[in-house]
Amino acid sequence: MTAFVYRGPGERGLEDRPIPGIQNPTDAVVRVVKTTICGTDLHILKGDVPTCKPGRILGHEGVGIVDRVGPGVTSFRPGDHVLISCISACGKCAYCRRGMYSHCATGGWILGNEIDGTQAEYVRIPHADTSLYPVPADADEEALVMLSDILPTGFECGVLNGKVAPGSTIAIVGAGPIGLAALLTAQFYSPAEIIMVDFDENRLDVAKRFGATQVVNAGREDPAEAVMKLTDGRGVDTAIEAVGVPASFVTCENIVAPGGTIANVGVHGVKVDLHLERLWSQNITITTRLVDTVTTPMLLKTVQAGKVDPTKLITHHFTLDAVLDAYEAFSHAANTGALKVIIDV
Amino acid sequence: MTAFVYRGPGERGLEDRPIPGIQNPTDAVVRVVKTTICGTDLHILKGDVPTCKPGRILGHEGVGIVDRVGPGVTSFRPGDHVLISCISACGKCAYCRRGMYSHCATGGWILGNEIDGTQAEYVRIPHADTSLYPVPADADEEALVMLSDILPTGFECGVLNGKVAPGSTIAIVGAGPIGLAALLTAQFYSPAEIIMVDFDENRLDVAKRFGATQVVNAGREDPAEAVMKLTDGRGVDTAIEAVGVPASFVTCENIVAPGGTIANVGVHGVKVDLHLERLWSQNITITTRLVDTVTTPMLLKTVQAGKVDPTKLITHHFTLDAVLDAYEAFSHAANTGALKVIIDV
Amino acid sequence: MTAFVYRGPGERGLEDRPIPGIQNPTDAVVRVVKTTICGTDLHILKGDVPTCKPGRILGHEGVGIVDRVGPGVTSFRPGDHVLISCISACGKCAYCRRGMYSHCATGGWILGNEIDGTQAEYVRIPHADTSLYPVPADADEEALVMLSDILPTGFECGVLNGKVAPGSTIAIVGAGPIGLAALLTAQFYSPAEIIMVDFDENRLDVAKRFGATQVVNAGREDPAEAVMKLTDGRGVDTAIEAVGVPASFVTCENIVAPGGTIANVGVHGVKVDLHLERLWSQNITITTRLVDTVTTPMLLKTVQAGKVDPTKLITHHFTLDAVLDAYEAFSHAANTGALKVIIDV
Amino acid sequence: MTAFVYRGPGERGLEDRPIPGIQNPTDAVVRVVKTTICGTDLHILKGDVPTCKPGRILGHEGVGIVDRVGPGVTSFRPGDHVLISCISACGKCAYCRRGMYSHCATGGWILGNEIDGTQAEYVRIPHADTSLYPVPADADEEALVMLSDILPTGFECGVLNGKVAPGSTIAIVGAGPIGLAALLTAQFYSPAEIIMVDFDENRLDVAKRFGATQVVNAGREDPAEAVMKLTDGRGVDTAIEAVGVPASFVTCENIVAPGGTIANVGVHGVKVDLHLERLWSQNITITTRLVDTVTTPMLLKTVQAGKVDPTKLITHHFTLDAVLDAYEAFSHAANTGALKVIIDV
Repeated sequence: MTAFVYRGPGERGLEDRPIPGIQNPTDAVVRVVKTTICGTDLHILKGDVPTCKPGRILGHEGVGIVDRVGPGVTSFRPGDHVLISCISACGKCAYCRRGMYSHCATGGWILGNEIDGTQAEYVRIPHADTSLYPVPADADEEALVMLSDILPTGFECGVLNGKVAPGSTIAIVGAGPIGLAALLTAQFYSPAEIIMVDFDENRLDVAKRFGATQVVNAGREDPAEAVMKLTDGRGVDTAIEAVGVPASFVTCENIVAPGGTIANVGVHGVKVDLHLERLWSQNITITTRLVDTVTTPMLLKTVQAGKVDPTKLITHHFTLDAVLDAYEAFSHAANTGALKVIIDV
Repeated sequence: MTAFVYRGPGERGLEDRPIPGIQNPTDAVVRVVKTTICGTDLHILKGDVPTCKPGRILGHEGVGIVDRVGPGVTSFRPGDHVLISCISACGKCAYCRRGMYSHCATGGWILGNEIDGTQAEYVRIPHADTSLYPVPADADEEALVMLSDILPTGFECGVLNGKVAPGSTIAIVGAGPIGLAALLTAQFYSPAEIIMVDFDENRLDVAKRFGATQVVNAGREDPAEAVMKLTDGRGVDTAIEAVGVPASFVTCENIVAPGGTIANVGVHGVKVDLHLERLWSQNITITTRLVDTVTTPMLLKTVQAGKVDPTKLITHHFTLDAVLDAYEAFSHAANTGALKVIIDV
Repeated sequence: MTAFVYRGPGERGLEDRPIPGIQNPTDAVVRVVKTTICGTDLHILKGDVPTCKPGRILGHEGVGIVDRVGPGVTSFRPGDHVLISCISACGKCAYCRRGMYSHCATGGWILGNEIDGTQAEYVRIPHADTSLYPVPADADEEALVMLSDILPTGFECGVLNGKVAPGSTIAIVGAGPIGLAALLTAQFYSPAEIIMVDFDENRLDVAKRFGATQVVNAGREDPAEAVMKLTDGRGVDTAIEAVGVPASFVTCENIVAPGGTIANVGVHGVKVDLHLERLWSQNITITTRLVDTVTTPMLLKTVQAGKVDPTKLITHHFTLDAVLDAYEAFSHAANTGALKVIIDV
Repeated sequence: MTAFVYRGPGERGLEDRPIPGIQNPTDAVVRVVKTTICGTDLHILKGDVPTCKPGRILGHEGVGIVDRVGPGVTSFRPGDHVLISCISACGKCAYCRRGMYSHCATGGWILGNEIDGTQAEYVRIPHADTSLYPVPADADEEALVMLSDILPTGFECGVLNGKVAPGSTIAIVGAGPIGLAALLTAQFYSPAEIIMVDFDENRLDVAKRFGATQVVNAGREDPAEAVMKLTDGRGVDTAIEAVGVPASFVTCENIVAPGGTIANVGVHGVKVDLHLERLWSQNITITTRLVDTVTTPMLLKTVQAGKVDPTKLITHHFTLDAVLDAYEAFSHAANTGALKVIIDV
């Protein structure tokens, strides 16, 4: 089968690989129909993710058709149309029982990282019963590809952790695909104001079309000052960090109102300054989270009910043969305007 | 009347002052019966609290007898025996309605800071209806002095924010009066393990008597390593920071388990390093809080029911005339073994 | 001044009454600008509300202009444009501190019940600081009249207590003004399905226009059977009872899914059968609530942000002189199609 | 093997049965070491549980040693010392993912009901990975038998659903084994008052020894009047129904304070009167629940930490050969003083 392989920092390419088989009784092998590229894949390609070794097939998102199942799989059978979760979860360990699938003792984010992933014609899915989801008959497959990772990440790490509520004021720092996923799902809770902060005017325009009530171009004005001005000096109830750099986290520290929450979504590479000399008395909450994908069933219902349209995030389409072009477009988003790209397998 | 006055950095003393009067319709004037000294008073004396100006009568804790009330006070009358809260709260503003008395628009921590305090024969209490609490007939006055500040601070900022739960494992970094108040009130929720961390062997001995299941002397071993060893490498569900310096906060970062909480109680003077490069994916929560004293009625019930004995925290007694001796004992706790000192007025 | 007075069961009329004065320091007197009629007013007129004595001026909703304030009022002054809450709350008692304004020791629902109400040119409002809300400069007065009672009632008692969530399935039994207020505010949380049950085809048509995804005419089919069929036998996550009779409560018992919630909003006159022989093992929650109006500030923000348009509920307009016509229209809703009527004072 | 078998209403006895085998890949067969009898077993013997057919081996509690496991079992192996949960849970279905193991699509309470149970030398446990728990090396086996059903039932259905909190006032109606399990576990949360209601003076004496602060003999005084008197007319924050008859549920309705909770634990055979004509405005919550056993890991920790001693509930010991004597003693508790009986297999 054809597969997109990470060969070491800066090295990658299409390879012919054997179709994976069942290794454990709870495995399924899925024929991939559609997949996509995540910002994390770019980090891997740079060599920034030490758990991902050269030779790895990348990708942790997608929809497909079940090809084979192990004897321990009870919820799926060959031919079933499935959504692949970016998180593999055994459903049995102490973390899974607490709903922290991200820290599953034998799972978590392993797909396209510690085991081969979805940017290939077939993929082996461990713990299939609790890591795949049935695709409803009338569902839009491309919408569901957005439910593998990006929509639950924005929703769980940003919106739920951030306690977005009716009438509240929120700011999302970073209008990349994750920030925009937070923007789309924040609207489930009818906040009064959603202020979007980014350097890219194009993405801010997208944010306005997606429901932001105000936008701040951090390249043109101090973002914290701008948000404080927009909120008459009160600050925001929820600040969602969706970049992963110290400056944007400190912006969140500077705009969160007393009693408010900073929900970190960004993947950080270095430490940040936490200004406890001011914040110790501000009754704030800071949360971090690797997506657990425990809200996938809920999100499926909202998509099916038309409460959110995740296809808005899709800007480009490619075939697996052209996956290098897909990476090219995705990694030069400032020029291409790419948000999420669909790869037809 | 006699009053203890802050005269500027390093300067303080007893003075004769006029008995305060009613300034606003919702004020009460209380004749102080017992008061105490808080670590914050020491910060003020050093000149570290810019909101507190020279000439201020210190003190924000105590019990007393209502002497006079303004026409807007409906819950108290002269002769009532009352507990004075360290936080003044109007009960009307947006923050008070959310239970965030600490950020009351016309109150918060003002007593012995922005207005004259309780280390005197009389004190004016603004917003008396929502800043005083009736003392039950059979209550121990000295126990209740601990309910002005230290017990709600340990409980709200440490135990409640830290989500201490039956069977959970917690660590409290700092065995000073506040850390010990967190230790006493954490036991309301029956955690399985309470690990106490401090440099002072005497305070660790006290902690063991107060219910700590393990103690770590941070002067003899690396505290994070020691806690990880005591928890078989799992870390703690709740880490309570009760010191207020970067090193102890970083210890909390290093011992909190995935899914756990760092509840900051300490008053910090400088920023700290937040290691998001590791913690971004650990599903942790960090909270800060200035005590709101919204749990005072609950704590009163637990004291009256014998569920906690706050008099354990009291090590010394003085009269108001000897308040300088009281400060001497309190500020040299390593030598005197002082935790909380009672000042009889 | 002109006032609408309850004179005993079946007896009522306009009377000339003296303008009320300040009785307590925390009172305000408000000149009423707009008011409305509540279903409870009809109950009073029938003699079904024993706390309301003959001679009482009715009405507990409205907006107006502050005319005079007592010396204990600090948040409002004459000339202020205000929203009158149906619940009077001292903000100081144990219930108020818990956010249960409905059970305020010296307040609760007293307006137009135990004290004179808003269907008059002026009304005295006790505990003004915590029972009035400032009207934003650009607000629609008639929208805000819906925030005195009906919108917080539907929201707090139905939607919040019912834990309506994104993607969830809810049923509202009763499409009167309260049920429709629940329907409007349930949409803050993006449920996937909202099934509306009523006997009145006109009200079901209104419900469809207001966002119901399905309607059931309880006069034509068994409502529980119909809801179970619409949910493929699963039942609903939230069943909101908005009628107040045994049959509709039992319908809720028959449609609530395991793990679901029955949120009672209706005012009941007799006991109901609770089928614990079946429900004891169904992990359900049943809630009751008299509106606390603690969400009034939140609802104001959602109205100002355009997240809900409460003027949809307004079907008729009258002047105070024609208040008898207003009652006539409101009490014959089946013929007049009346939902809420605005009375201009 | 020897097994205790239900043969139809009023008929039962020991039988020789074949040792069960693995039927599904996720099964384990456990050699039972200790088991016990539940009140539900008595209901079955009377013919009151239609899902339990004649020929069924009874029992849904116990500890044992794993004898064999199916190929899909990954957490246990032969020789492992295990606690058997009364609830079988697949860990995969929609209900299990929500923590509602009691409503597992292919499990729930099936043991000793729809499939053969633990009052035998061996028992087959479906979904073994998520229905068995490892017994810690130093654990008291008999204490853990109490964790199969009675302790999680009292804790989850009574204490957690009842939101028992520090300083709160609770009443438990029914001092049988379940009510006493609620009493023991309620103390995890340090309530100020625990009032126990029963007809049996012996059980009330036990309740006092177990930590009840007040007892009410419902045979000698009206229980609701007595509880209201003990609470100075305020009623209780939490009323736990642990009997399962209309009278005791109505007692709970009559003693719950505004804002309080009625947590039903009892198994009811007939409907009860819900007095909504009074309760509609009292802001109360009523909960029902079949135990989910999701707190088993938490309870194990509290037992191991000495926070609760469930062996207090054990009054009698028998061998499996004498199981008829055990039933005799258990079913005549008023005479024998039996609470829980241990059956050594």
